[in-house]
Amino acid sequence: MAELTTTFEKTIHKLLDEKKFSSVKDVLATMAPSDVASILQDVDEKLIPVIFRLLPKSLAADVFIEMDSDFQEQLIKGFSDSELTAILNELYVNEAVDLIDEMPANVVERILNHVDASMRKDINQILQYPENSAGSIMTTEYVSLNRGTTVGQAINYIRKNGVDKKSFYTCYVTENRKLIGRLSVKDLLLAKNDDQIIDSLMKTNVISVKTHTDQEEVAQLISKYNFMALPVVDNEDRIVGIISFDDAIEVMEDEVTEDIEIMAGMTPSDKTYLRASPFNLFKHRIGWLMLLMVSATFTGMIITNFETALSTCVILTAFIPMLMDTGGNSGSQSSVTVIRAISLNELDFSDLPKAIGKEIGTALLCGTVLAIVCFGKIMLVDRILMHNPDVTVMVALTVCLTMILTVLVAKTIGCILPLCAKKLGFDPAVMASPFITTTVDALSLLVYFGIAKTLLFK
Amino acid sequence: MAELTTTFEKTIHKLLDEKKFSSVKDVLATMAPSDVASILQDVDEKLIPVIFRLLPKSLAADVFIEMDSDFQEQLIKGFSDSELTAILNELYVNEAVDLIDEMPANVVERILNHVDASMRKDINQILQYPENSAGSIMTTEYVSLNRGTTVGQAINYIRKNGVDKKSFYTCYVTENRKLIGRLSVKDLLLAKNDDQIIDSLMKTNVISVKTHTDQEEVAQLISKYNFMALPVVDNEDRIVGIISFDDAIEVMEDEVTEDIEIMAGMTPSDKTYLRASPFNLFKHRIGWLMLLMVSATFTGMIITNFETALSTCVILTAFIPMLMDTGGNSGSQSSVTVIRAISLNELDFSDLPKAIGKEIGTALLCGTVLAIVCFGKIMLVDRILMHNPDVTVMVALTVCLTMILTVLVAKTIGCILPLCAKKLGFDPAVMASPFITTTVDALSLLVYFGIAKTLLFK
Repeated sequence: MAELTTTFEKTIHKLLDEKKFSSVKDVLATMAPSDVASILQDVDEKLIPVIFRLLPKSLAADVFIEMDSDFQEQLIKGFSDSELTAILNELYVNEAVDLIDEMPANVVERILNHVDASMRKDINQILQYPENSAGSIMTTEYVSLNRGTTVGQAINYIRKNGVDKKSFYTCYVTENRKLIGRLSVKDLLLAKNDDQIIDSLMKTNVISVKTHTDQEEVAQLISKYNFMALPVVDNEDRIVGIISFDDAIEVMEDEVTEDIEIMAGMTPSDKTYLRASPFNLFKHRIGWLMLLMVSATFTGMIITNFETALSTCVILTAFIPMLMDTGGNSGSQSSVTVIRAISLNELDFSDLPKAIGKEIGTALLCGTVLAIVCFGKIMLVDRILMHNPDVTVMVALTVCLTMILTVLVAKTIGCILPLCAKKLGFDPAVMASPFITTTVDALSLLVYFGIAKTLLFK
Repeated sequence: MAELTTTFEKTIHKLLDEKKFSSVKDVLATMAPSDVASILQDVDEKLIPVIFRLLPKSLAADVFIEMDSDFQEQLIKGFSDSELTAILNELYVNEAVDLIDEMPANVVERILNHVDASMRKDINQILQYPENSAGSIMTTEYVSLNRGTTVGQAINYIRKNGVDKKSFYTCYVTENRKLIGRLSVKDLLLAKNDDQIIDSLMKTNVISVKTHTDQEEVAQLISKYNFMALPVVDNEDRIVGIISFDDAIEVMEDEVTEDIEIMAGMTPSDKTYLRASPFNLFKHRIGWLMLLMVSATFTGMIITNFETALSTCVILTAFIPMLMDTGGNSGSQSSVTVIRAISLNELDFSDLPKAIGKEIGTALLCGTVLAIVCFGKIMLVDRILMHNPDVTVMVALTVCLTMILTVLVAKTIGCILPLCAKKLGFDPAVMASPFITTTVDALSLLVYFGIAKTLLFK
């Protein structure tokens, strides 16, 4: 509903220009928090605190959490102590943790001084879990029930205490803090009888993660089982928090962006593109570029080695880019497909023989078809149309045989490297296009000159 | 909890070997549907219908929907008419539609003959919406309330009629079938007073999509607003269905896989890697390979044009792969970053000047650093260590100047092409690595020979 938001923006800006703040207040109160946030970030800086103070208290916190970190910092600096306390009290623990992660030290101190003691304890606990672990993204507001409670009691309990629970619709049943069961508000509401005991209704095989589980696995589980929330337990199986589907969606998006960046030969960045400075971008890009440039020394050496041969048959040089590109493209097709299948949990190291078989089959089909077309193209375009007498049948044969072998090598390497990386505990995404291209370049040149030696220079 | 599932699998297989079906039944009844499905798909084919019949009715349908389509087809063919009806009655309409999409015509006919009349009507309606539209992935089981209802009445209504509603926790308020409000079960349960009227509680600014809205936009909205479900309306704003967060997560994963496949120069495929035959893979890969191979003719022509110059200074050939690879890698870094930012809605055509500025800055930084290192490497490794007298300072200068210009051109093109593609209504992902590489190859060769002509052959 991009259109909807735009219309709203215009209305709000107009009302603001006319200083009709009471109408602005009424309009904003009906809007989704993320839309209010994007409008706020768009108005004159001086107006931000003014409009922000117009928001109903409960909406204010939701809007605040949707804003970019520098706007949040600015707002916090302008808040009175009571305003800050009011906002912080409306946040979930995981939102407070995210905020603290982004703020400079002096602001963090002020935040910690204005949350209540129990929240401060939870925040400090979560801050101790390693980055990207389930513990670091969980929140501590969940509904927990006792096994002996009746359905009626449970519903009443939720109606009284559910207001600030992020896992409102999924309740966890505990005994001595140990997680022993799970049931949903739907189960409660659909129960035939209000006197039924939770114990007889709950699902006992609760899928949970440990605090140190990787956040990517959390997202995969939520996606696989269609959960609204996933409980996080410590080593003694005591529930310590939950991760809800909306936080898992955020993790998914971040992990995909990270994978894509790594696959394109970059180190992953937290900043969005528009907020990254050229120097930021440079830092994340130069590493791989440098490594790949230096490793291209090998391809240079191979060519230097064959310099004398090349100088007697310079036409061979003309086909180097095509062979290298086709090899690189074939290899990255395979590696990227395999990397994605690994990250969707469809493929693991035990499938290596099957994958190699598939890639060899595909490579022979692709290579043969490409070679045939290439042969026709060389004889027709390069030899006849362009009247190039250097282009002999033997040259064309050399190029086409190299083509088949290059595609074969590229596709085989393209599927082996990511699976081996995974097995060895590296990120398979590292083995994508740039890495494969450099490897395949060197190999395809060796094949090319090897075949040329046999066919042309015997 | 991969470990958990594995342990279960072993237990089940052991119990099956010992023909302890009653225990198998008890164990399966406690498990998550997707885990049961993966166990079923792993056992001896003849056992599948046997185990399937052991499942409690409600679990059976959930397991069935998690299975791969050929297993589903096999099962349906084995079902008696009453078994088929029982399973189909447990499905949501969107699940039935997904099933029909995958089945051959004769099975589809049997399915449509065994669903009840109102579901058949809904299925036929959804089947008419274009592929990848909101209408095609929605389901029709949602809770709808009247504005005059009280909280108490609404809760009772849901407790009586909610059982087969996919949007159990989000209720839509309608008037003459028009969508006028939204409220959640949480709002209802937390309402202070059971006599409160829905009208005073509901949110009226309901974000919805049209039946023809692209599914990618649906997923983005659900992710942006953290919705559990999103209503789908027709052109008269009448609600016709909903899409829930778990279906949106599936769309996200499919769209990401599609983007990644296109970025690596493939046409997107519905099949998982392990289920695709080499011929399938070939069909999805040969198109781009062929196009890119043929377009590499230009690079060949450029080299042929400079053949005479090259034969007097063959050493220039040795640096072609390095220059081309660095150009290709630089370009794909930019294009992939920009493509991802576009698909996350962070960037659009109006940001083009900003993006170009960023890329030029980044390119100058990367290019300069690369050129300096490259100059050092050429003079040290190629000239002194390898005793190659052909490598003169002027050759090194030619290579390094080309390096800077190539990186500059590559990064600029890498950000312009995807943004322009988006503007023109094409998929920006098409403008990723393979396409950029081919374009940059030709340009970098032109630059290389141009500079060589000026510096070396004047």
